Amino acid sequence: MNLTRFAKARHATKSFDPARKIPAAVIDELKELIRFSPSSVNSQPWHFVVAQSDAARARVAKSMQPGYAYNEAKVTRASHVLVLCVRKDMDEAHLNAVLEQEAADGRFASDEAKTVQQNTRGFYVNLHRERDDLSAWMEKQAFLALGTLLIGASTLEIDACPMEGFDAKALDEELGLAERGLTSIVVVGLGYRSADDFNAKLPKSRLSAEAVFTELV
Amino acid sequence: MNLTRFAKARHATKSFDPARKIPAAVIDELKELIRFSPSSVNSQPWHFVVAQSDAARARVAKSMQPGYAYNEAKVTRASHVLVLCVRKDMDEAHLNAVLEQEAADGRFASDEAKTVQQNTRGFYVNLHRERDDLSAWMEKQAFLALGTLLIGASTLEIDACPMEGFDAKALDEELGLAERGLTSIVVVGLGYRSADDFNAKLPKSRLSAEAVFTELV
Repeated sequence: MNLTRFAKARHATKSFDPARKIPAAVIDELKELIRFSPSSVNSQPWHFVVAQSDAARARVAKSMQPGYAYNEAKVTRASHVLVLCVRKDMDEAHLNAVLEQEAADGRFASDEAKTVQQNTRGFYVNLHRERDDLSAWMEKQAFLALGTLLIGASTLEIDACPMEGFDAKALDEELGLAERGLTSIVVVGLGYRSADDFNAKLPKSRLSAEAVFTELV
Repeated sequence: MNLTRFAKARHATKSFDPARKIPAAVIDELKELIRFSPSSVNSQPWHFVVAQSDAARARVAKSMQPGYAYNEAKVTRASHVLVLCVRKDMDEAHLNAVLEQEAADGRFASDEAKTVQQNTRGFYVNLHRERDDLSAWMEKQAFLALGTLLIGASTLEIDACPMEGFDAKALDEELGLAERGLTSIVVVGLGYRSADDFNAKLPKSRLSAEAVFTELV
């Protein structure tokens, strides 16, 4: 099957219908899809906060004030809101948790295979630590999950609005993320567009294939 | 429809069957899917180099030597290789190209709407310029495209191996990317796994839902 028609059909929803709620089974599917997103060396440096109730979404919406007020209604009118977070550090506890999960899932036929995996992941983590871009590297992995989420929402006929416009520091404080070693990077409104969503009526625009592809000879 | 089964079925292919080639129509579908990936404020700060011939893939494979020799065969044995690149700068020429494409595609009912879009995009570009994370921001957008590509390949029954392990500076030089204002960030082998791809036989592993989700009250 082909996802291109879903990629073309989706858009960043600018106005949600607050009366329509995503069924629990559909949210569960989206969560499972995100959880199975790929990440470099299976590092999974992410965490996802799901806000469903009016009160929970209101807590997230506070981080749109004062500088990003135009994003507030996309949180308060959405059915569900997902806050994508990354770890502040790729610490030993997390690396061990991933390794032990892989062991429990049966990926290692021998202790040697387990050590190889540990060393490979450690090599890349240290490489990014030395380059001083560990945070940026972890954020990129979360964007892999975001890409998976956005196309996945489209296939489930769910509208989405990913937002980088919010006060991350304020949201981290409101949700107690900092003390959990996490920081918020993207807020995604999920639900169903309202009749007044102007973006749904506009044609999609992308640079031409000639502009974005080079065929190497 | 539901992508979760594709997310669970895919894996990072460690060994490709060099005899099997992806049909041109399938590659065209993947390219169209990537081209329609979302990006923050529709910035599309990316470029994709497609290497198909043995000679073209050999040029890409050079960047795996000497430090990442274990990735070399994933390039030389793949059917196609995609090099994901980002711009070195989000300059006025690119911003204008995106704006004029949007105008040509009919997204602006008025000059005012066009100016609003130009200002919104400019605000976020300047925000990241001030934060000194413009490159990291552009790379994150490319990872949105990578997430879309990996799940999209799975739905088309194409195996993929995304690699961050290569000498980006050497590859930029080999492909003449620097003088085009681009830099390579990920190399993706695409094709069909061979019978000796050990990773295809291992169970997939992810952290538990309890570990990666918080339900906000």
